Amino acid sequence: MFFLFPKKRRDYLLNEPLARVNQWMDDNQPKLIRFLQQLVQEDSTRGNEYKGQAVIIEKCRELGLALDIWEIGKETTEHPYFYSDRTEFIGNPNVVATLRGSGGGKSLILNGHIDVVPIGNRADWKIDPFSGEVKEGKLYGRGSTDMKGGTAALIYAMEAIKACNIILKGDLIFESVIEEESGSAGSLATVLRGYNADGAIIPEPTNLKIFPKQQGSLWFRIHVFGKSAHGGTRYEGVNAIEKAIQVIQAIEQLEKRRNASIHDPLYKNIPIPVPINIGKIASGSWPSSVPDLVVLEGRMGVKPEEMVEDAMVDMDQTLQLLIKEDPWFNQKPPTLEWFGARWLPSTIEKDHQLVTILQDSYKNITGTDAVIEASPWGTDGGMLYHAGKIPVVIFGPGTTALAHDSNEYIELEKVFIAAKTIVQAVLQWCEIDELS
Amino acid sequence: MFFLFPKKRRDYLLNEPLARVNQWMDDNQPKLIRFLQQLVQEDSTRGNEYKGQAVIIEKCRELGLALDIWEIGKETTEHPYFYSDRTEFIGNPNVVATLRGSGGGKSLILNGHIDVVPIGNRADWKIDPFSGEVKEGKLYGRGSTDMKGGTAALIYAMEAIKACNIILKGDLIFESVIEEESGSAGSLATVLRGYNADGAIIPEPTNLKIFPKQQGSLWFRIHVFGKSAHGGTRYEGVNAIEKAIQVIQAIEQLEKRRNASIHDPLYKNIPIPVPINIGKIASGSWPSSVPDLVVLEGRMGVKPEEMVEDAMVDMDQTLQLLIKEDPWFNQKPPTLEWFGARWLPSTIEKDHQLVTILQDSYKNITGTDAVIEASPWGTDGGMLYHAGKIPVVIFGPGTTALAHDSNEYIELEKVFIAAKTIVQAVLQWCEIDELS
Repeated sequence: MFFLFPKKRRDYLLNEPLARVNQWMDDNQPKLIRFLQQLVQEDSTRGNEYKGQAVIIEKCRELGLALDIWEIGKETTEHPYFYSDRTEFIGNPNVVATLRGSGGGKSLILNGHIDVVPIGNRADWKIDPFSGEVKEGKLYGRGSTDMKGGTAALIYAMEAIKACNIILKGDLIFESVIEEESGSAGSLATVLRGYNADGAIIPEPTNLKIFPKQQGSLWFRIHVFGKSAHGGTRYEGVNAIEKAIQVIQAIEQLEKRRNASIHDPLYKNIPIPVPINIGKIASGSWPSSVPDLVVLEGRMGVKPEEMVEDAMVDMDQTLQLLIKEDPWFNQKPPTLEWFGARWLPSTIEKDHQLVTILQDSYKNITGTDAVIEASPWGTDGGMLYHAGKIPVVIFGPGTTALAHDSNEYIELEKVFIAAKTIVQAVLQWCEIDELS
Repeated sequence: MFFLFPKKRRDYLLNEPLARVNQWMDDNQPKLIRFLQQLVQEDSTRGNEYKGQAVIIEKCRELGLALDIWEIGKETTEHPYFYSDRTEFIGNPNVVATLRGSGGGKSLILNGHIDVVPIGNRADWKIDPFSGEVKEGKLYGRGSTDMKGGTAALIYAMEAIKACNIILKGDLIFESVIEEESGSAGSLATVLRGYNADGAIIPEPTNLKIFPKQQGSLWFRIHVFGKSAHGGTRYEGVNAIEKAIQVIQAIEQLEKRRNASIHDPLYKNIPIPVPINIGKIASGSWPSSVPDLVVLEGRMGVKPEEMVEDAMVDMDQTLQLLIKEDPWFNQKPPTLEWFGARWLPSTIEKDHQLVTILQDSYKNITGTDAVIEASPWGTDGGMLYHAGKIPVVIFGPGTTALAHDSNEYIELEKVFIAAKTIVQAVLQWCEIDELS
């Protein structure tokens, strides 16, 4: 017989500590808010991640976790999954803090990124983007929703487990990584340093939905060529902007074709499951001249089950068809380049135990059914999945719409719900040692 | 009886001095080349026009012409035809040099601009852009074709008249103006200073064709708005680039309609008589974001007989129709702005005496018929025509294709032909005093 205790006994083993943990969480909400505030108050944009990590390290020391702090090195930057233009990581370490289990349980990674995107135009912010100001249940600031709110929920979950003297069987591995916003080099480094587990939860801003599948994405740059001429004799030239419109329209058709082939019910409420976005266009320097070059940049979504390389082939074939069919493109072929950041996709089954445990926990905490969907964006989950073969679920308190925007905020109520849901999932996944 | 002399006598009165002038021109070609070289060697880009004017002034003094040198002032900058973003003209004067006639003949303006466009990318030049180097009958350098070659032809024509002691009845007014490349403020200033005449020749690069009609042009800037979103949920935003494509396509249709209404035989060999050129597009700052703003800039051609205001209305109505028909544009209307430079159109009849005299002269010099066409670009002629009511013909030795380009050059043989054609036209138009 596999189970040492009958179901009832197991339920008691879970329920009694869970009740304690929940009670502690209810009693200590100001702790969580204060910690999140501290975290948001540190400007941990790219190159400044150390400021956020210092807050994390201090907290993990206080909790008595086994700390590992290191800077990304060659083993990462020379790895084929390293997609970044950054070469300098000195002073901005990754942090992993482990709560070692007593043995026999499944291990779990709790992963959050410490880097935040730039604030953009300061004038668009009504409050100081690094104030962490709380107003009407919302905590404001860059990174509050993406994803310091999620990270704070993880820390709070661990703190509750420690404070309630609960001993887990499986290892609980908390990762505070850099470089998520620029291509997952931080999470790649954790895998290469040997951190692996039976599952991982990443509290990116899902608005408390559960994402077992994540879209990947990669950046492309296309040069479209024309022939310059004076605007008054524009017929003597070829306007690169006109030719770029043809390229954009071909890409729109490609997006249609790629999405028409997706029938996954997790995408049923998503108008375009894996979009291709044209994010930048630049051409010309003089109103009276026919421009001879357009530079397009964009983001291509990658299906959860798709290989990045296959998505690349799709885009390349679209351009090849244009080159074949259009005499001008034949003479001056547009060039395609994959540059900058890249996020790998990831997928686990909808009924994977990590998903169902989170589902149950969410229902238990909120009384309502969790929404299960596929993510419209990439996360570090793709890297953990591809580099570490780790099953990943994304579930967090923030909301996509606020991420990267001015006046970013997070609803504190959702951070509590996320923390409570995650703590219950941890107790079930890693299991509680009877000695607790 | 109107004519004092029978036709034969008049022919002799023209032909004998003309023969002398032509002989002088043939004998003094190195003078012209040396002068043009000096002129090209001075970098007279905007703000540096004084360098080129110094060469002009020195030469006009040598020829004993009545000089007027002045800086553009308020009478010009506050005039409704002043289309420029420049406010500072100190140190960069206009120059007018008059060869006073003995009376009784028609006056003629010979107008050339001293300003040249920037060299662009120095690396694209095979020779020093201010060398004035001569190779195989071509003189190289910025401004050689646009339009120092033409100006040198004018100076050479006047020098020949002076050297051959020919006295004209009508005034010959040579204008070396600034600011042609940026909206004709220099030529506007000449009119406002009182310079007027019965006709004007401007030797812009027509490749020795005769242009009695000139297209005008003006610059527009359109802001097209979108709604930002993350690229992964691009359906939550409105991509300003997609909306800008709609605007561009509506402008293409407008261009078609405007040109379909032109039946002037002077345009019969011109694929698009008055083009609308999209010269610049800029949008977005991040491949993964849906851009919420596109800025388009372009040049709209104005028909020779059209009022600039009517062309503006055409463009505005095109946008208004989009705003009416498209719900998004209705909500976020694109904005239209007319900015920077503007060149007024100009037109005289194909059989105007200034045209026929140039035609005859050209045939006399080259033995072939001149091509009469309408210009694909604006010149200072539009300003002389609108501000001064002066009939204008454009006829010059350069070629459009080389203007504003790297490795600009002019064929010296064409400068000679232009100078000889112009000198004969001057003698016929202004008439020769019998005392000559």
